[in-house]
Amino acid sequence: MDKILLAHGAGGKLTHELIRTIFRAKFSNPALNQLNDSAILKAGNARIAFTTDSFVVNPIIFPGGDIGKLAVCGTVNDLAMAGAQPLAISVAAIIEEGLPINILKTITASIAKAAAEAGVIIATGDTKVVEKGKADKLFLTTTGIGIVAKGIKVSGANAKPGDAVLINGNIAEHGMAVMSARNDFKLKSEIKSDCAPLNGLTKALLSKVPSTHVLRDPTRGGVATTLNEIAEQSNVGIIINQAYIPLKPMVQAACALLGIDPLYVANEGKVLAIVPKSQSSKAISAMKTNCYGKDSSVIGEVVKAPKGVWLRTAMGGLRPLAMLTGDQLPRIC
Amino acid sequence: MDKILLAHGAGGKLTHELIRTIFRAKFSNPALNQLNDSAILKAGNARIAFTTDSFVVNPIIFPGGDIGKLAVCGTVNDLAMAGAQPLAISVAAIIEEGLPINILKTITASIAKAAAEAGVIIATGDTKVVEKGKADKLFLTTTGIGIVAKGIKVSGANAKPGDAVLINGNIAEHGMAVMSARNDFKLKSEIKSDCAPLNGLTKALLSKVPSTHVLRDPTRGGVATTLNEIAEQSNVGIIINQAYIPLKPMVQAACALLGIDPLYVANEGKVLAIVPKSQSSKAISAMKTNCYGKDSSVIGEVVKAPKGVWLRTAMGGLRPLAMLTGDQLPRIC
Repeated sequence: MDKILLAHGAGGKLTHELIRTIFRAKFSNPALNQLNDSAILKAGNARIAFTTDSFVVNPIIFPGGDIGKLAVCGTVNDLAMAGAQPLAISVAAIIEEGLPINILKTITASIAKAAAEAGVIIATGDTKVVEKGKADKLFLTTTGIGIVAKGIKVSGANAKPGDAVLINGNIAEHGMAVMSARNDFKLKSEIKSDCAPLNGLTKALLSKVPSTHVLRDPTRGGVATTLNEIAEQSNVGIIINQAYIPLKPMVQAACALLGIDPLYVANEGKVLAIVPKSQSSKAISAMKTNCYGKDSSVIGEVVKAPKGVWLRTAMGGLRPLAMLTGDQLPRIC
Repeated sequence: MDKILLAHGAGGKLTHELIRTIFRAKFSNPALNQLNDSAILKAGNARIAFTTDSFVVNPIIFPGGDIGKLAVCGTVNDLAMAGAQPLAISVAAIIEEGLPINILKTITASIAKAAAEAGVIIATGDTKVVEKGKADKLFLTTTGIGIVAKGIKVSGANAKPGDAVLINGNIAEHGMAVMSARNDFKLKSEIKSDCAPLNGLTKALLSKVPSTHVLRDPTRGGVATTLNEIAEQSNVGIIINQAYIPLKPMVQAACALLGIDPLYVANEGKVLAIVPKSQSSKAISAMKTNCYGKDSSVIGEVVKAPKGVWLRTAMGGLRPLAMLTGDQLPRIC
């Protein structure tokens, strides 16, 4: 392989390979090597979470959101997954020449609205313009700083055998909403992106269950890919129960039509929380107090063996859920 | 005007207008409204500088540097201009499908080298890939966090009549190096970008002259645009002396050939420092202790009136240096 493929950006095996061999090989340091959604740094007496994401979603406006809402929620959620509350966000825009200014105004309003909901300020930004045909309408890069409260220690490396795996609602909605919005794609549906800021939900959870082990949002690559990352970091196995996976019939039907497994489809308003089994009821109650946590439930458990991620099917068997190699849904975020 | 033009990204009048009417109109908050190279935030007992920039330079490799070195130095310098020392940087890459992996390795090595020189870690990152023809090889967005030392208070709003305006060396080299590297441009020359991390230089300066009023790096739009920003923020006039502007003969010749005023050409390793006149000798001595400050000198002064920025010509007259409206050098950073 001597050239970058689309699949290098899909969040699956090739993305991890690229990050390991190209980026981590050169940038290795303790903060980066944590491999969590945010790096944790010390500044004076504060623990700071720091995270960045570029957004290249196509189309830039889709049912349930747009690239602006997506960028703010994506970054707020990466901070939330570190157990942090957001302090400030930066927004850097790369704009293709010819973009209608009205569209930019719509996106900007959407950024402001999402930031207000999450209770975070846009502290700084940047604007670049490139020639027509050298970008695709608008790319945004948002970077966030958050403050990690004392005593909180969540990490993808902290899952323990016996832990319960929780999720806050229906999966696969963001990915399928974006797919259905694409012009070159004939699926018409009412599926809306689940795009939402989750820092209120994680705050509610952590205040009741500060011993929460893992928080991770199953974005690019979906629930299956994110659980694979956790299983690898924690050196455990994770078994989820097919019957417990929350999924709207319409989303299930759309996935079936396209031959796509919803467990690999991106979410933008979901959190996988892994907590000690004894705390799972308390955790679910806490999550349900937040508007994005009404449908919270247990979907699986952490085991010592077998390693990796497994789906317990309706028939009772175990099907492996490997990390995705290719790119089933390009430019989903 | 209902569409985005290339000039909206040039750093001049249209960029300022876009930021004021679209972004600031929606995002207004005290941190953003500081309008400096970095926002200043409080985290626990620390004062944190926070800054972001996207880099879309074309070509991605040019004499004296590449997009990786440029991105790290650009962000380190924005922190340095806030009087901060860098704590961590994030790097988000948007890659065009088909980019040779060897080029990505070269750029990555360059990022690592520049970060090591500046003494900053790459704490977190992101990778997105878009289809061939939907981006131009590689765009990078770097965001930096830095710590502002106690007692330091530099801002574009702090220039005072009577202050001296200093610069650390020859101008216009980055912009002309990038222009000369473009294939569609027949200028062959040995001009190299001045791209360099300036946090060592600003640290040396601030340790000797903590009363420094303004630090600003004259990037997009050059010395003239940056001085206009300062003059406006501080509500003062700034007069620079043509005879004192440091400029290599080769760069001057290249600018003359193209009909470009070097005062509007981007620099990536220069700092404009504004200090009380009584401190200017001490400031120059401090700057000269750093390898990027050997050619430091006084180039002008801050006055109460006339407002705006003025060039004292060799003939003794005053020529206005307005903020640039158009885009003489697109995608220079």
